[in-house]
Amino acid sequence: MRAMVLEAVGQPLVLRQSADPEPGPGELRLRVEACGVCRTDLHVVDGELPAVTPPVVPGHEVVGRVERLGAGVHRIALGQRVGVPWLGSTCGACAYCLDGRENLCDAPGFTGYTRPGGFASHLVARADFCLPLADDADPVATAPLLCAGLIGWRALCRTGQARTLGIYGFGAAAHLLTQVARHQGRRVFAFTRTGDLAAQACARSQGAAWAGDAGAPAPGPLDAAIIFAPAGDLVPVALKAVRKGGRVVCGGIHMSDIPAFPYRLLWEERELVSVANLTRADAAAFFPEAARAGVRATTRRYRLEAANEALDDLRHGRLDGAAVLLP
Amino acid sequence: MRAMVLEAVGQPLVLRQSADPEPGPGELRLRVEACGVCRTDLHVVDGELPAVTPPVVPGHEVVGRVERLGAGVHRIALGQRVGVPWLGSTCGACAYCLDGRENLCDAPGFTGYTRPGGFASHLVARADFCLPLADDADPVATAPLLCAGLIGWRALCRTGQARTLGIYGFGAAAHLLTQVARHQGRRVFAFTRTGDLAAQACARSQGAAWAGDAGAPAPGPLDAAIIFAPAGDLVPVALKAVRKGGRVVCGGIHMSDIPAFPYRLLWEERELVSVANLTRADAAAFFPEAARAGVRATTRRYRLEAANEALDDLRHGRLDGAAVLLP
Amino acid sequence: MRAMVLEAVGQPLVLRQSADPEPGPGELRLRVEACGVCRTDLHVVDGELPAVTPPVVPGHEVVGRVERLGAGVHRIALGQRVGVPWLGSTCGACAYCLDGRENLCDAPGFTGYTRPGGFASHLVARADFCLPLADDADPVATAPLLCAGLIGWRALCRTGQARTLGIYGFGAAAHLLTQVARHQGRRVFAFTRTGDLAAQACARSQGAAWAGDAGAPAPGPLDAAIIFAPAGDLVPVALKAVRKGGRVVCGGIHMSDIPAFPYRLLWEERELVSVANLTRADAAAFFPEAARAGVRATTRRYRLEAANEALDDLRHGRLDGAAVLLP
Amino acid sequence: MRAMVLEAVGQPLVLRQSADPEPGPGELRLRVEACGVCRTDLHVVDGELPAVTPPVVPGHEVVGRVERLGAGVHRIALGQRVGVPWLGSTCGACAYCLDGRENLCDAPGFTGYTRPGGFASHLVARADFCLPLADDADPVATAPLLCAGLIGWRALCRTGQARTLGIYGFGAAAHLLTQVARHQGRRVFAFTRTGDLAAQACARSQGAAWAGDAGAPAPGPLDAAIIFAPAGDLVPVALKAVRKGGRVVCGGIHMSDIPAFPYRLLWEERELVSVANLTRADAAAFFPEAARAGVRATTRRYRLEAANEALDDLRHGRLDGAAVLLP
Repeated sequence: MRAMVLEAVGQPLVLRQSADPEPGPGELRLRVEACGVCRTDLHVVDGELPAVTPPVVPGHEVVGRVERLGAGVHRIALGQRVGVPWLGSTCGACAYCLDGRENLCDAPGFTGYTRPGGFASHLVARADFCLPLADDADPVATAPLLCAGLIGWRALCRTGQARTLGIYGFGAAAHLLTQVARHQGRRVFAFTRTGDLAAQACARSQGAAWAGDAGAPAPGPLDAAIIFAPAGDLVPVALKAVRKGGRVVCGGIHMSDIPAFPYRLLWEERELVSVANLTRADAAAFFPEAARAGVRATTRRYRLEAANEALDDLRHGRLDGAAVLLP
Repeated sequence: MRAMVLEAVGQPLVLRQSADPEPGPGELRLRVEACGVCRTDLHVVDGELPAVTPPVVPGHEVVGRVERLGAGVHRIALGQRVGVPWLGSTCGACAYCLDGRENLCDAPGFTGYTRPGGFASHLVARADFCLPLADDADPVATAPLLCAGLIGWRALCRTGQARTLGIYGFGAAAHLLTQVARHQGRRVFAFTRTGDLAAQACARSQGAAWAGDAGAPAPGPLDAAIIFAPAGDLVPVALKAVRKGGRVVCGGIHMSDIPAFPYRLLWEERELVSVANLTRADAAAFFPEAARAGVRATTRRYRLEAANEALDDLRHGRLDGAAVLLP
Repeated sequence: MRAMVLEAVGQPLVLRQSADPEPGPGELRLRVEACGVCRTDLHVVDGELPAVTPPVVPGHEVVGRVERLGAGVHRIALGQRVGVPWLGSTCGACAYCLDGRENLCDAPGFTGYTRPGGFASHLVARADFCLPLADDADPVATAPLLCAGLIGWRALCRTGQARTLGIYGFGAAAHLLTQVARHQGRRVFAFTRTGDLAAQACARSQGAAWAGDAGAPAPGPLDAAIIFAPAGDLVPVALKAVRKGGRVVCGGIHMSDIPAFPYRLLWEERELVSVANLTRADAAAFFPEAARAGVRATTRRYRLEAANEALDDLRHGRLDGAAVLLP
Repeated sequence: MRAMVLEAVGQPLVLRQSADPEPGPGELRLRVEACGVCRTDLHVVDGELPAVTPPVVPGHEVVGRVERLGAGVHRIALGQRVGVPWLGSTCGACAYCLDGRENLCDAPGFTGYTRPGGFASHLVARADFCLPLADDADPVATAPLLCAGLIGWRALCRTGQARTLGIYGFGAAAHLLTQVARHQGRRVFAFTRTGDLAAQACARSQGAAWAGDAGAPAPGPLDAAIIFAPAGDLVPVALKAVRKGGRVVCGGIHMSDIPAFPYRLLWEERELVSVANLTRADAAAFFPEAARAGVRATTRRYRLEAANEALDDLRHGRLDGAAVLLP
């Protein structure tokens, strides 16, 4: 097996060759067909998440074919196409797992972080956390749904019935979410980096009713806002834009510090919350909805060996849509 | 009529005499029996809320007997004992009014702030915002329920089913809320100013399972926390104390700036929200619950003319329980 | 003023002439432009609702121009186009009114039932319960939204996040609701009277994913079902069709008796609920959503004097879409 | 091992001797200390639930000490005291399992029904569905909490914030629930069989604010009602007793047919729902709450061999409190 491995935080990934791994009980081995590159990969590589001990193989938007089954795996068949998301395992026993909030599990495993990821030709994963995909699903188009799509979905659900929705940061998650929100008849206002006319045009083409700079006044009050950009200073901006009783959802796994802000921005029962990880129930709800909505991911393909280049393009905002690695 | 009037922000109140006011259509006139002194009065007097033009008569925890009815008032009778809370009027027509969130009304009137308050011998109020009280209700014991009690109740409702509850700042609202929470079988951990052993003893005597300094580690994870102290720097402290998925509720109308804090304090689906004002539905739910819980307000009595002294005692944390003015 | 008046339950309406009524304080007078005919009118005329004392002027889907304002009316202007819905007044003081559930008010007034209705050339209504309409709104197309549309909306809201929705009884409310549900990306399965191929074709043309007989098996499990037909024997049918944890909503004001059914139909946390009346907050949410969804009512026009004919066509299921009277 | 076995539906249980069973992977073997007798056992024995093929060992309120661990069991230790509830296993993969509603699992196993139960000296159970108990927990007092307690808890949760609660049928579940509800400051009205003064006295002694015949008018409107008696004809009675917008929860696993009833009983947004089974999250919330509430089960002890006698006493309403078998 080939894998792009993070051997030291802050360093480029290195290509490594090894024997194909064997799945243990309850696991399966995948031949990777495509793996999306997500901002969380960047956080891992740059050491912005609580440290894990390298070596790590990043990548948690993995699509592949099942090549080998470990003992006791029944629900998934050899040759089946599946997806492997960020949530790679849970304890199944803590209060959160039992209560439908396995995204908050006390002892989780995360694909491409505390478990091996999909920047590789092969991957061993817990079978019960693999998501069955349609046999004719396009691996490249599907990969970004596995994190950018799912986390956006969970963020959207956390906005409740919000009909007018602000989105701050218009990257992979935002462009997928906008399509889903539109399918549900919601209005989307897209806020981008100042002067990023390309992202604003992209937002409009995905169905946003309005697109403009993050600092600009919205054309109307927001029922809720979702912040995908990892910039904590957007929090006061978004709080200012939502109506009384409205909610700001922080959609990313990492964000720079939230700056000091006056209490009146939170006043009038505004709410500030974060969204963490995903559950398999989210996936079970999201994929059919994405299919009904006809969600189309905009992607740029890279060879597996060009993973560093893909990460760099993401780091510097040179992507519209999502980067996908092909082994 | 006699009233203690704020003639300039930041100045002491001044005693004024005038003719008794006449109620207009839909209004009534009260002979004030008691009026609580609330931290919001302090914010008004000290100019910490968006400015209103003096003169203002503060006071929005008013208990009195109805002395005169304006045209068209049917549901309230002459001689009846009623309470006048902070929410003195609403437009009845905005989206918030119509949707059961009149606390967020687009055009509200606030007793003792944009409307005349109860630091006076008499008061004219909108009849439909007066709360009927039991004929034998004790005016002094009841007055603090009208804001400290009610805002605590609304804050408690906003914590949902939280069974273990942290309370930051142990003054009038907290000591009432602790009694209600105990009646509902919730566990209360009380966090006070560092070293305020008197407040901690008071908290325990009201039923808190634990009391200690705000900076101290709680004896267990909190399902939710309510901050009554007007100190924004308690927000990160409380976020740190609530469990994953838990909620921090800011219970006051004013708070110093919320300081910068790292995103990880909000991470894992923690929630930060504020509670604003009250609704009449809150009152309709709270008063019977307070009666069932046998809530007892700890009070200190002042003559109306000593309103400045009462405000000063509150300003300097010299009160345990609630100050009440007697005309 | 001309009005079609119910002088005795079970009898045809009779045309009466009288002086134009004068609006009292807080009221306004409308010149009626169009009035929808709703199944509830039929229930009133046929005496299936708790009896009111005739004479009654039916009609609660009223669109008109404001012709005269009573004292104290400020938010609505002379000449403005407004709608008058079923909920004609509330007490504004009961627990339900205060809590955002004015549809359950303890002392409501209902247009065309306990208050005068719109089967007339003119109508006096409480101004605060009139719904402002766009100046260029088409009276005929708008009238059915005022009850069939609104009650469907409230029923839809009571299904929560249901993505797959069964609708039993495909008349005026159903054809409007299907358009809204489609706009929100929900899947609609329409169940009609056995063999009513016209209604099934209509359902498909409005966006239903499937249409068939009420007794037929659905092509998949329903998250929720709404029953608009006034036939209690559809309750067990619908309970059988919803998935575990699913909900059946009875959308009408009147229904024949719910027949005996085995407990296992309710088992597995299925839910059976009714929807009653509407709130002004429903209207404030529904009209913009209907506009965004581009809802188009299918209507059949009748002269005011032909009200009995319209009622009869409705009674005998000879309508597709909604009957509208033109004075 | 000794077990009381149901060999044919409708027949008495028969005592059987066999070798102690061996736990498989993920399972453990318990030495039973006590096993409660629940109405569901009666439904199983009397063939009122969908048939299972005998032989069956009933009993799903099992308390015991762990005597042997199967492969891969880590969280539970030899000698530990655990409880085995009705929900004995789930698939862990269906939409319900993933979404925190494992009580609705598509492929569940039920203790004492589709899996062996606790009317026995020993029992093999899935380790991840065993509930850890305090080492000094009293087996007899704890057993009834495992179903009567838990299902009552889930039913209570399904009533939301209801402050005034009607309970129909005052047996084991009701007497436990009343104590919990009281701890939470709720008011309980207990409705018993006509003239059952003993049950009414029992209800009052547990903290009910009122107790009377099921047909009697309640002393006030109910926010919600829970029906524990397996009598479908209580459904219209309870619907009539709840206020507008109130909810009736059917708490049992089996109930005779729900009789025909007029739609007006459901009208005004009343809700009729069932509660099914339990989740481990329910147990995780319930046991600490029961401890805080100081819940005391009233029990009557029987030798294991007298299981038929205990079932018969339950069948004929000769128990107050809960029957518990001692091996």
